[in-house]
Amino acid sequence: MLASNNYLSLANHPQVVSAARAATTRFGAATLGSRLYSGTTDLHVELERELADWHGAAEVLFTTGYQTSVGTICGLIGAGDTVVVDSAIHASIQDGCRLSGAATRTFQHNDVDSLREQLQHVADRGGACLVVVEGLYSMEGDVPPLRSIAEACREYEASLMVDEAHSIGLFGADRTGLVSHYDVADLVEIRMGTFSKALASTGGFIAGSTELVDTLRVNARAFIFSMSAVPAAVASALAAVRIARSDEGAALAARAVANADHLRQLLSDRGITGGGVTPSESGTPLSGPIVSIELGEELAAVATWNRIFDADVFTGLSLFPAVPQGKALLRLSVMATHTEDQLDRVAAVVGAALQDHRTSEKSH
Amino acid sequence: MLASNNYLSLANHPQVVSAARAATTRFGAATLGSRLYSGTTDLHVELERELADWHGAAEVLFTTGYQTSVGTICGLIGAGDTVVVDSAIHASIQDGCRLSGAATRTFQHNDVDSLREQLQHVADRGGACLVVVEGLYSMEGDVPPLRSIAEACREYEASLMVDEAHSIGLFGADRTGLVSHYDVADLVEIRMGTFSKALASTGGFIAGSTELVDTLRVNARAFIFSMSAVPAAVASALAAVRIARSDEGAALAARAVANADHLRQLLSDRGITGGGVTPSESGTPLSGPIVSIELGEELAAVATWNRIFDADVFTGLSLFPAVPQGKALLRLSVMATHTEDQLDRVAAVVGAALQDHRTSEKSH
Repeated sequence: MLASNNYLSLANHPQVVSAARAATTRFGAATLGSRLYSGTTDLHVELERELADWHGAAEVLFTTGYQTSVGTICGLIGAGDTVVVDSAIHASIQDGCRLSGAATRTFQHNDVDSLREQLQHVADRGGACLVVVEGLYSMEGDVPPLRSIAEACREYEASLMVDEAHSIGLFGADRTGLVSHYDVADLVEIRMGTFSKALASTGGFIAGSTELVDTLRVNARAFIFSMSAVPAAVASALAAVRIARSDEGAALAARAVANADHLRQLLSDRGITGGGVTPSESGTPLSGPIVSIELGEELAAVATWNRIFDADVFTGLSLFPAVPQGKALLRLSVMATHTEDQLDRVAAVVGAALQDHRTSEKSH
Repeated sequence: MLASNNYLSLANHPQVVSAARAATTRFGAATLGSRLYSGTTDLHVELERELADWHGAAEVLFTTGYQTSVGTICGLIGAGDTVVVDSAIHASIQDGCRLSGAATRTFQHNDVDSLREQLQHVADRGGACLVVVEGLYSMEGDVPPLRSIAEACREYEASLMVDEAHSIGLFGADRTGLVSHYDVADLVEIRMGTFSKALASTGGFIAGSTELVDTLRVNARAFIFSMSAVPAAVASALAAVRIARSDEGAALAARAVANADHLRQLLSDRGITGGGVTPSESGTPLSGPIVSIELGEELAAVATWNRIFDADVFTGLSLFPAVPQGKALLRLSVMATHTEDQLDRVAAVVGAALQDHRTSEKSH
């Protein structure tokens, strides 16, 4: 299984599973109310407190990651304002921008000069400016030059939001994500995370000032007008966060990244370049758990994915609109519990399929 | 507890709870992939099949009700088209309309003449037209004149979408909702439902033609770019649907509505008018499980709600933006398992608080 965002292998962790089961017995299968109405249980409050302690910030939960993006952006900005986003930003952020009524401008992926151009344009035009980047881009598997981005935002007095959906649980000494890794929490107004990747559940959250979080609680329509997360999901998120914060979490995060690096090496031995390593601002390259391989044209990519699947290796295939047209990506998401034997087999199967893919590309 | 959408009391039903627990053990705490990527389990397919059998239509699941609304509307229409909605339509439908880029027009709540005026306007203007109404309006507790609405839509060649979020499990001989009650399935292209009310879970679905559902699977961004529902939620929805379809479900639905009618009578004996009964097109009034009482100005409404809460009765209070400003609503959501003693006590507590509320209103 190399198509799951279960980076820390927590979705089947005994503590996570048993927490979800116990919460279902205690609180029922669902809350059947929105957070502000009747859908706040002790468990929701406990998870918000755990996250607050983890981030040293106020916290608010949303029912899904998609709704965290859409609700937050629409709850904070509107017509007359501008959002500046990375060109690879997630669809849910794009939808939030469009729904907010703010103008949206795009800078080239991870390019700080391109960001500065856009910030200058907004400064000339006037109005509030929000910049949104991700802590780890799920398609490419790379990370942004976050310190330079944060400094540019401060210089232009733009607010910065970092979506740590794919980086939480993995980066930083405390595993809160890339903001922690680069030690720029004081430059980031809005820290977003989701439970639907390393944290073995569903839903998302915003960490920030009390003022920010209180504003979202009364202003984010995707928070107000949606049932709160089911008890099973809140309990598994809480259990997963506690593991992620522990020594066990530190070991799992290190293992996931080491496994991905090992797979990259095995592929490289076969002449295949797997993405997901970013030259760091501090000098040491930063590795993530996603190994992405460019496949190009869609039909040939599907054939190659099928060939790999038929050999019992489940990989991810990203097609338009998740990536640009004609730029299909094979994605190998590595987990902490993948064994050396499994990674050897993946490299052999993917290596053979890719060799045929390249041969067939040349013959066309 | 009169502030829960747990109309059929299924959230703590032993079969529902045990299904959620078993699914967590078997499939893990979360799928950690979107439906099109790696997030489709046998359980998701089984729930879609059960719903298809129930509705006699194709089905597609979404992770939340909010995303069902937003994803469906944006997946079907866009700039140049028009959506015509009831003035009391849910916020998630409003957000879907805005995000779609289509023009939005509003007709007066449950007023077919007003709908016809808007349809005529759209016909003069041109472009595709989608009409969206609910099967049961959650604030007012009333239902639309659905046959007349459906006939007007057919006459003007507009497509009709009915959101059965609050009516599913309650209305119709098969409990699929108001479309079934009025026997107008052949006039309704898009039937929407959610599990976050009577069906004891989270998420939503669309029932319709295979062509419609297949379009949504590749075109609805809130479907594509969101993790699939956690196994616990899918399993509890499946168990709840099976109960809702059974004789037990028929009895529970009848009991919920009979309990609500009984509470209305008890309130009426105290001079209080509780909404939630709609004069039906067929002659017999149609009762729902929501008993709404107008409280007017917000601050006084909050004081009255607090007084009722302090007497250990948990009711719902709907304030702007859920209802118009200055039109706060006290909402009593009646469940199938409320006892006669409980309803007596609710009527006594609410009756006393409302008497004070009216006296205090007059003195201002």
